[in-house]
Amino acid sequence: MSTDAVTMDKIVSLSKRRGFVFPSSEIYGGLGSSYDYGHYGVLLKDNVKARWLEAMVRERDDIVALDSSIILHPEVWKASGHVAGFSDPLVDCRTCKQRFRADHLADPEHQELRCGKRPSKRPGETPDCDLTEPRNFNLMFQTRVGAVEETGVDVYLRPETAQGIFINFKNVAQIARRKPPFGIAQVGKAFRNEITPGNFIFRTLEFEQMEMEFFVPPDEADEWYRYWVDERFRWHLRYGVRESHLRVRPHEADELSHYSSGTSDIEYLFPIGWSELEGIANRGNFDLTQHAEHSRQKLEWKDPQTGKGYLPHVIEPAAGVGRAMLALLCEAYDEDEIGGEKRTVLRLHPTMAPIKVAVLPLLRKDGHPEKAREVYLELRKRMSAEYDEGGNIGKRYRRQDEIGTPYAVTIDHQTLEDGTVTVRDRDSLSQERLPVQGLVDELEARVTNRT
Amino acid sequence: MSTDAVTMDKIVSLSKRRGFVFPSSEIYGGLGSSYDYGHYGVLLKDNVKARWLEAMVRERDDIVALDSSIILHPEVWKASGHVAGFSDPLVDCRTCKQRFRADHLADPEHQELRCGKRPSKRPGETPDCDLTEPRNFNLMFQTRVGAVEETGVDVYLRPETAQGIFINFKNVAQIARRKPPFGIAQVGKAFRNEITPGNFIFRTLEFEQMEMEFFVPPDEADEWYRYWVDERFRWHLRYGVRESHLRVRPHEADELSHYSSGTSDIEYLFPIGWSELEGIANRGNFDLTQHAEHSRQKLEWKDPQTGKGYLPHVIEPAAGVGRAMLALLCEAYDEDEIGGEKRTVLRLHPTMAPIKVAVLPLLRKDGHPEKAREVYLELRKRMSAEYDEGGNIGKRYRRQDEIGTPYAVTIDHQTLEDGTVTVRDRDSLSQERLPVQGLVDELEARVTNRT
Repeated sequence: MSTDAVTMDKIVSLSKRRGFVFPSSEIYGGLGSSYDYGHYGVLLKDNVKARWLEAMVRERDDIVALDSSIILHPEVWKASGHVAGFSDPLVDCRTCKQRFRADHLADPEHQELRCGKRPSKRPGETPDCDLTEPRNFNLMFQTRVGAVEETGVDVYLRPETAQGIFINFKNVAQIARRKPPFGIAQVGKAFRNEITPGNFIFRTLEFEQMEMEFFVPPDEADEWYRYWVDERFRWHLRYGVRESHLRVRPHEADELSHYSSGTSDIEYLFPIGWSELEGIANRGNFDLTQHAEHSRQKLEWKDPQTGKGYLPHVIEPAAGVGRAMLALLCEAYDEDEIGGEKRTVLRLHPTMAPIKVAVLPLLRKDGHPEKAREVYLELRKRMSAEYDEGGNIGKRYRRQDEIGTPYAVTIDHQTLEDGTVTVRDRDSLSQERLPVQGLVDELEARVTNRT
Repeated sequence: MSTDAVTMDKIVSLSKRRGFVFPSSEIYGGLGSSYDYGHYGVLLKDNVKARWLEAMVRERDDIVALDSSIILHPEVWKASGHVAGFSDPLVDCRTCKQRFRADHLADPEHQELRCGKRPSKRPGETPDCDLTEPRNFNLMFQTRVGAVEETGVDVYLRPETAQGIFINFKNVAQIARRKPPFGIAQVGKAFRNEITPGNFIFRTLEFEQMEMEFFVPPDEADEWYRYWVDERFRWHLRYGVRESHLRVRPHEADELSHYSSGTSDIEYLFPIGWSELEGIANRGNFDLTQHAEHSRQKLEWKDPQTGKGYLPHVIEPAAGVGRAMLALLCEAYDEDEIGGEKRTVLRLHPTMAPIKVAVLPLLRKDGHPEKAREVYLELRKRMSAEYDEGGNIGKRYRRQDEIGTPYAVTIDHQTLEDGTVTVRDRDSLSQERLPVQGLVDELEARVTNRT
């Protein structure tokens, strides 16, 4: 398994070719850094979200789910600090009118910076722009609710799902009869008017987050912070990311948000280098304090034992669905050779694979298709399955390998005689004969238990 | 089962009380007609979406999934007609500055219309506003992408998911190797700046749609239109909506969109009366024609047999997740008496129920909790389960009834002796003793197969 085979170009190309992800609004020339997810992309993305929710909510007693609105009361973003502070410093060129991120000017990654109005005559000449002082540009998308000018209100598309959780903390604690430590988990879209989105689905204007806010007694915050860094690290390992491709990078003091006493990124070795896969932050009681002040509501948790109220501290593991999916694609991508022929294969963890099993009649005659359809219809009841009778069997295996299908079931003349099928394993390439009777249970067990 | 017990107030109250749905941004005084979904609400809503996707994608060979962006290229909405025509006619009162929908002026439902600046002195007096001529107000939310004035672009939040499907038709047909008839299904958020949202989650500014566009040869359109009306009607029956509460209402000629040769609403008898649950429209080739024109791309499907190209016609079943969920809640809501005590119960179809099984130790001692936890941990691996040891057993049953949990497993002293548990059925109230061994298989079968 040669990981150096992976490049972003190959991932982008495979994603487009097999319909995982393609540029959005393509027939209109696209809309920068915006992507649509095709069939296999939706299935893979849904699996990522389902496994996250499973680990966060279903397999635990101390976390509940929430789905708050994208458009919240505008006061929420004043309280959270986003209206005042969620901005990038931008500079303009007085000559060419282009705008740049001030912090990119000195960055060797952004060498392409040059004045658009003064084209370089000779190769190597890089005329500088005539730049203004940096100004702050808010990253939140703004829109307006209400038809009437007088009663309408300016609102924002949420730049993170987290605040929807904080403003519902009191409601949820009461209704769900919870006491700290407990968490609220949410999966949903967020929007950021990024100046420099890019690297495929790594950074996009519109993206899905998986965030969980874990509310704890203040003196337990450090312990829970360490717990969640470990727990989230293990989640990625559980679904097949190699430990050598993952690392925890604690933020330096000067990187930390002013309210955070500790933040760590879980980084993945993407083809673009080590980059943030998700972040775990100890947010203290900053958010609840802010919302209590701005809403003038008591958001304290009252300890029934001591009778004393306190604002819980919050540990937040925040992950991006697109990044998790991109990491899984990079991790799974491989090229090898079978019988002298090059093969592209996605070695996805079976529970993540869009399709769990392909059912293939060996021939398009002799009763193979009929029997194969019968087997397929049974399997489909319990797992995501695909039936394919087009092209020779090798070609059909290759198609399934490319989308990461862990098992292929082939129906041949022997199936009609003794009721057995061939089960081909994507990775070991082993071919096993198994009875149709009990096949669905067997495959379900393999998909679920495989590590 | 007395259906007249259901009122919108009771549904709203139960939803708030048990954390299915509550007003959004509540600590800031709310944001009109905006709702957040709590734990059970998320689980119920996820089940609705999963069952829809199951019926639309997983159980079929002819439909694939898609997840397109909320922010699409603005040209999409010019082509679709939304920029020019997706608007409500509004009138203003010159005196009180209020704004009203022109088509509501004559509507007896909107009798509250009165001038806010001329308060009625005597009961029964309804002074009229001094109204302007109607003007059109576009229902799309607008925002702006890009930091730079010169290169920034005005965009819209999609008012429907459908257009994201049309613009990807060609891509998907090629990549997924599909030929008409085939469909593309999508679940996702849409946004409409409604003048008169309301009736709880029936009509909200931000909502989730489940839309499928089925592309067919033109001469098969009528047949497929009838097929999808039937198919969608049956889907609602499948998940427990009574046939007497559902009806198909074909649109009158004057209601039809100019491009549609047929549209039917599936209506549900909500507490507010018969109202649209979902719509099935024969859209002809209007959308593909428009996008082909505006994008100057060939969107024709080329028939490999005849060699002739044609624009497929489209049948669209479009449902709202919130409405489907509201209908299920209304349909399931019931009040009865057990032993002289009033009970509120949600008779949800088991596959829709947020929690499938509650595990309850009879006593909080004598080893009951330990054994109950053991059983709970086993069940949780395969279905959404809840453990509850708080309060007497009757109270705990009531709590589960109220959120629609179909089965409650009680662990008592006999469990410790012979390894059997009591399984209580939410609807029949029967209590059956079943062995712990095999319990998860048994319950899974009941949840899946129950009609």
